[in-house]
Amino acid sequence: MDEPVANLDEIRALSGHLPGPDLEAGSLAATRQAQLTKPAGALGRLEELAIWLAAWQARHPPRLDHPRTLVFAGNHGVAARGVSAYPAAVTAQMVQNFIAGGAAVNQLCRVFDVGLKVYEMNLDTPTADIVDAPAMSEAECAKAMAYGMMAVEPGIDVLALGEMGIGNTTAAAALCGGLFGGDAELWTGPGTGVAGTALEAKRRVVGEAIARHRPAARDPFDMLRRLGGLELAAIAGAVMAARLGRVPVVLDGFASTAAAAVLYAADPHALDHCVVGHVSAEPGHRRLIERIGQRPLFDLGMRLGEGSGATLAFAVLKAATACHNGMATFDEARVSGPR
Amino acid sequence: MDEPVANLDEIRALSGHLPGPDLEAGSLAATRQAQLTKPAGALGRLEELAIWLAAWQARHPPRLDHPRTLVFAGNHGVAARGVSAYPAAVTAQMVQNFIAGGAAVNQLCRVFDVGLKVYEMNLDTPTADIVDAPAMSEAECAKAMAYGMMAVEPGIDVLALGEMGIGNTTAAAALCGGLFGGDAELWTGPGTGVAGTALEAKRRVVGEAIARHRPAARDPFDMLRRLGGLELAAIAGAVMAARLGRVPVVLDGFASTAAAAVLYAADPHALDHCVVGHVSAEPGHRRLIERIGQRPLFDLGMRLGEGSGATLAFAVLKAATACHNGMATFDEARVSGPR
Repeated sequence: MDEPVANLDEIRALSGHLPGPDLEAGSLAATRQAQLTKPAGALGRLEELAIWLAAWQARHPPRLDHPRTLVFAGNHGVAARGVSAYPAAVTAQMVQNFIAGGAAVNQLCRVFDVGLKVYEMNLDTPTADIVDAPAMSEAECAKAMAYGMMAVEPGIDVLALGEMGIGNTTAAAALCGGLFGGDAELWTGPGTGVAGTALEAKRRVVGEAIARHRPAARDPFDMLRRLGGLELAAIAGAVMAARLGRVPVVLDGFASTAAAAVLYAADPHALDHCVVGHVSAEPGHRRLIERIGQRPLFDLGMRLGEGSGATLAFAVLKAATACHNGMATFDEARVSGPR
Repeated sequence: MDEPVANLDEIRALSGHLPGPDLEAGSLAATRQAQLTKPAGALGRLEELAIWLAAWQARHPPRLDHPRTLVFAGNHGVAARGVSAYPAAVTAQMVQNFIAGGAAVNQLCRVFDVGLKVYEMNLDTPTADIVDAPAMSEAECAKAMAYGMMAVEPGIDVLALGEMGIGNTTAAAALCGGLFGGDAELWTGPGTGVAGTALEAKRRVVGEAIARHRPAARDPFDMLRRLGGLELAAIAGAVMAARLGRVPVVLDGFASTAAAAVLYAADPHALDHCVVGHVSAEPGHRRLIERIGQRPLFDLGMRLGEGSGATLAFAVLKAATACHNGMATFDEARVSGPR
């Protein structure tokens, strides 16, 4: 992790000045859709996605030649409370697995020709235990957000945002409760696979963290600082940078979406350039998706994180772009229109 | 369309001797899944699909190097009743569009590296109008099924089955009513986009066709002959040939699934080597999927036919295969297992 200089107030200010969609590019895409050789609307969400991509890439035709998946990895002090089925050492071990090419996200990136970058965020220095204290200082949170912003390099056409961090469904559940209210039960689930008394203990931890920080937090960014984690702050930063850089975003599962939801809580239009790739088997994800008004592209019972669902969703975006850009019009193909 | 020699009784007899899954290959796949670097079950249906592919390809590891989409095109006498929003000439025009590479399925095949073959089935000679007579003679139906069987060439790893045929959601709706009962309203939908009085007229046509043929049909194959069409018979034949040749199948939308449902009605295990790629916006499709006990992979509001949804579903199968074959095991990656 590098050492960017940023403070949270500057990021707050920036979040108030996010650009909107390019209506001209979107309109060009909608006009073209109506001319392609298919009954109007017959490609369903593929049509909507092509128009959405054009509007948020601010260009027509939309392009998907350089998709990229970013995986941010961070460790959580709260993991010491046994909230995960796996030991905290697995975060660093899985980063090595990403680097060696052995994880699920590596295979998905290969099969769909997606660039993958993995960012380790001070794995030897977990955030503070959110039951006892804020996860991060203002400076740490701002630095992690800025780090995520810098990871959105020029030339990327579309971005998937994933994470790795033992304990981060606990942080994500607490963050959701902090941002949107509701009992810990609503947001807490098995994560990597806790059940029974371990799941009850995880719920208690989430409830205690919410009770400690929700009343004290002054806004969604402060909630992120208190209940989030380094990789979650980086994702929130990357979502903002992508908006500024005209890069549509595919969110992944519960932790990825919870991180982005910080921006939604600050401004309900802040995620208009994002789509949730899939609905995770982690039960809080479905609730969170509804809360932020998103519609996931598929539900295959995945719950792995590491950007896996979002990377698979690139296939749908590639399909949408290929149909939009490559299909013949009724005139070109000399196909009769409706009677 | 070639001139295969076959009769429907031989096909009936063959349908009683379909091979089952290769339990050893499936078991090898399940064993490997449990060793890969992810919490057990965290890839959801991708894990199930990898095991299913191995079992129905009868080999481990499963392979997906040679996926193929087949599109069968046929014309329907019932189209003269105005049941479609488009004139019957569009069937042949769209075949030319497939050949020229301008249709949606061409783009989807290109982006996912899928082989595409399009089969015209006597487009100048529509089937008989199902309101007045059986769509096909026994010999015509058997020939069309055999034609579909022959289209399953050696070397294909997985098959998507699509269709093109103005009027074929009318035939498919009548076929569903014939096979499974229920009023015409249950199975009839807008197809390419009929609405209002035209949709009411379509429902009446479907109802009259069911009333004429259902009591007279002696079995599901006879129902296919009476209410189906050439491209639907070819799909049913291809599903059978794929089973015999150890090729898993992805069904597409309403017409494709209705054709395959003939085999289900004859034997509830006849589609165990098939998955429905997506649920179409055509309302009868969801009902049909439930009736035959399938679970579609996604719901993106598509309703185009031509194998488009099934070809997109290849992306999910490719993802499943890539993760299964390429991921490291916990031992290989030296990642700690659960505590």
